[in-house]
Amino acid sequence: MVKVKDNETIVLIDEKERKYILNTSQKTDKYKGVGVVDPKIFVGREYGSQFDLGNKKFWVLKPSLMDKIQSLKRRAQIILPKDAAQIIINCSIKPGSKVLEAGIGSGALTVSLASMIAPNGKIISYDNREEFIDHAFKNIKTAELDSLVETKLKDVTEGIDEKNLDAIILDIPNPWDAVKHAFKSLKPGGYLCCYSPLSTQVQKNVEEIKKYNFIEIKTFENIQREIVVSENGMRPSFNMLGHTGYLTFARKTK
Amino acid sequence: MVKVKDNETIVLIDEKERKYILNTSQKTDKYKGVGVVDPKIFVGREYGSQFDLGNKKFWVLKPSLMDKIQSLKRRAQIILPKDAAQIIINCSIKPGSKVLEAGIGSGALTVSLASMIAPNGKIISYDNREEFIDHAFKNIKTAELDSLVETKLKDVTEGIDEKNLDAIILDIPNPWDAVKHAFKSLKPGGYLCCYSPLSTQVQKNVEEIKKYNFIEIKTFENIQREIVVSENGMRPSFNMLGHTGYLTFARKTK
Amino acid sequence: MVKVKDNETIVLIDEKERKYILNTSQKTDKYKGVGVVDPKIFVGREYGSQFDLGNKKFWVLKPSLMDKIQSLKRRAQIILPKDAAQIIINCSIKPGSKVLEAGIGSGALTVSLASMIAPNGKIISYDNREEFIDHAFKNIKTAELDSLVETKLKDVTEGIDEKNLDAIILDIPNPWDAVKHAFKSLKPGGYLCCYSPLSTQVQKNVEEIKKYNFIEIKTFENIQREIVVSENGMRPSFNMLGHTGYLTFARKTK
Amino acid sequence: MVKVKDNETIVLIDEKERKYILNTSQKTDKYKGVGVVDPKIFVGREYGSQFDLGNKKFWVLKPSLMDKIQSLKRRAQIILPKDAAQIIINCSIKPGSKVLEAGIGSGALTVSLASMIAPNGKIISYDNREEFIDHAFKNIKTAELDSLVETKLKDVTEGIDEKNLDAIILDIPNPWDAVKHAFKSLKPGGYLCCYSPLSTQVQKNVEEIKKYNFIEIKTFENIQREIVVSENGMRPSFNMLGHTGYLTFARKTK
Repeated sequence: MVKVKDNETIVLIDEKERKYILNTSQKTDKYKGVGVVDPKIFVGREYGSQFDLGNKKFWVLKPSLMDKIQSLKRRAQIILPKDAAQIIINCSIKPGSKVLEAGIGSGALTVSLASMIAPNGKIISYDNREEFIDHAFKNIKTAELDSLVETKLKDVTEGIDEKNLDAIILDIPNPWDAVKHAFKSLKPGGYLCCYSPLSTQVQKNVEEIKKYNFIEIKTFENIQREIVVSENGMRPSFNMLGHTGYLTFARKTK
Repeated sequence: MVKVKDNETIVLIDEKERKYILNTSQKTDKYKGVGVVDPKIFVGREYGSQFDLGNKKFWVLKPSLMDKIQSLKRRAQIILPKDAAQIIINCSIKPGSKVLEAGIGSGALTVSLASMIAPNGKIISYDNREEFIDHAFKNIKTAELDSLVETKLKDVTEGIDEKNLDAIILDIPNPWDAVKHAFKSLKPGGYLCCYSPLSTQVQKNVEEIKKYNFIEIKTFENIQREIVVSENGMRPSFNMLGHTGYLTFARKTK
Repeated sequence: MVKVKDNETIVLIDEKERKYILNTSQKTDKYKGVGVVDPKIFVGREYGSQFDLGNKKFWVLKPSLMDKIQSLKRRAQIILPKDAAQIIINCSIKPGSKVLEAGIGSGALTVSLASMIAPNGKIISYDNREEFIDHAFKNIKTAELDSLVETKLKDVTEGIDEKNLDAIILDIPNPWDAVKHAFKSLKPGGYLCCYSPLSTQVQKNVEEIKKYNFIEIKTFENIQREIVVSENGMRPSFNMLGHTGYLTFARKTK
Repeated sequence: MVKVKDNETIVLIDEKERKYILNTSQKTDKYKGVGVVDPKIFVGREYGSQFDLGNKKFWVLKPSLMDKIQSLKRRAQIILPKDAAQIIINCSIKPGSKVLEAGIGSGALTVSLASMIAPNGKIISYDNREEFIDHAFKNIKTAELDSLVETKLKDVTEGIDEKNLDAIILDIPNPWDAVKHAFKSLKPGGYLCCYSPLSTQVQKNVEEIKKYNFIEIKTFENIQREIVVSENGMRPSFNMLGHTGYLTFARKTK
């Protein structure tokens, strides 16, 4: 039986599976979705237990990666876990990887990547909008992954400082303007990934990628179809997210 | 410029993007897909370069996770990278995680999981068929991930020895028979994932899961749609894998 | 240049593409979505023209099949045009066909079927709920297809009066209870179609169908993916209807 | 009990559901898929019965629309029934409709359309390749729908002779070159449909369509997912047709 300690980050999950991350050292305050609470009251509670707070019920758990992603504050459309997962595996990201992403958005992909490259990898995140970096970095700190992430106020289409990178992920409207920099900054065998919602972006980008010594160029979209299971039978959910973005991958040779 | 060394594992990629993993310390032999070759000839080559071997051309690279998955020898239908990726992120697997999987199959999921939990995590893999363990473990060794994997000749429906696991992944025909063991062996907040091709399996399994203190129970299928991009335009590929398996996730409270 | 005449059925389409069917012989009244209007004012207007009515703009057209479907008043979930289209072609319905459907729902499928079997075919529609028949028949009358449709207050699972039918379409929760009646009432080569939202319904139904001399048994789902096209590029719509129903078809031999 | 007569068109369906259309007045010959046979032997047989012929078994039935489509000889990629069905319903095609299509391809769509517009409608089919018209018209004759179809050796991008058409369907590589002609030749409320495999075609075409008084402009793709149902459960088929073409619809006002 593991209990919550002082100065520990926890996640509260309500019965609609909304998630709120707190640290037990935080002061009494009004926490969005939770209400006015003194986080110290959770100290000594058993992880996995559920309890009442105001008129709601919450489970208390140690925050998992999914908790961190699902509780982060969104400023822009985020790269969803289903796509982040494909980026991670198709770029062969693993503990120790050195990865550049641009732009940072709300930091959702950053959190996923940082979780995977611990303990000794590095995420470098470019964005040319200071307010996005500030907002995202707060999310990354809440997720306790800030030691693995370096942000840069920089436009990736103007150049990349780093060399010998394991992967570069571009979530910008004009990835084709950064492809030549990406090629130079990747190690042999390193992966480029571009996330683009529109057909024309994919097309223009793939044309640019083909000018360099990239192999294994592929584009796909990843569709998640939720299944509703009840005692009467199962069926796909009526509500479905029809599209997020196309994912294009390419791998540098030399 | 990084060069291939002696006693180093490399991947050869041909022009159809088929992949072959070799170690430069191996002896002259006939290697499937490559032909008769003395692996020592690669020592001193530049990573990322392409060269002729017989009547084929090969790139030489350091094996990435995708190379390891794509080159492994299949004995049974494997869990594909698109699904492995969803398992990893939805089970919040990360460096240091302790994960049990059953059965081992050809070791494809094992390789993905082991790559992600390095350097100090552990994959425990149960299978009640010795020949599958032997076959899979060879694949895991080729992928140089064997130090992170422990195999057990054991039927997971008869019990799980380990406790306080971060995640348990069941790829067996009757996952419902292992749910009660899984519940006991997961830590609070730990994830259960079941991979099942058929509707009836999902239904029976979700019914069993609901008997325990699991939250965040969800089922989905993940569909990857390859996009063909040419200078004339883009379109989804005519050939498509229509189905692999349904993924059911659940999270233990206490 | 064709003009609207007296005693003619027209469709008004607003700028959000909502559709309202009226007859120019109807009296001044408040028409839902249109406002208070004397339908006679449309007489003499040119078909295809747009005009102001209150603070909205409407195009006036002769009602097409899609207008009839899209303007009908829904009481229950309807079979959508995408699925109606598959039913029509996979049951080989054509002018002159004699088709039985059960239940009638809001009459949406009935309208599609009746349009296709004109001028000398027949739709027989069973429902055991009088209020559904009444509601649906009003929709069918508005669509000016009532001369092609015969309704029966009858439970299709208790028997089918008609013989030698070209097709039978079952949109009821328990189609398996009507399969034996359907088999008897179909002509050789006639088609049975069952529409079911749930996996368990499909399974139970296909098991029942296999007991009879049916061939070409197949089940599929039909997914429509709307594409958003703008000058910047195209992409699948973010909003998507994830599921309607599974369609099972079978064909009687003798 | 209905029996096959002399000079009657029948379909033979083998146990793999391959279909062969014959007329009982044809002479003894080698018929592809059937073998050497005198079609007169079927006269007097009961419709719906199965019998041996050589080492195969065949059911004999009156040809349905699906039989006609599935047995036609393909010269080029055809518009599949799933898409033909969407064209029919979204263009509100019905008995009596006057429809132009270009090009004719193998006549598969022509057969579907002609079946639906009987007994007093008309399909006009343009193609600028004489050999395609010849090939397609043979298929249309076999389907006994030739009295409803008029073919023209003509490039639809150079103009359309007909006026006041209910629908125009363009299955050509450059539909945008025919849009202005289509607009002129449609009746108010008439439908334009363009079938295009590639994103760039859709984009260019929609831009052209927007220049004219078309409303209800929409593009979608229609995906059919076959479901495999067995006593063990059901699942989507592993093999799936990933893409056919995008369908764009628009409706003329005036």
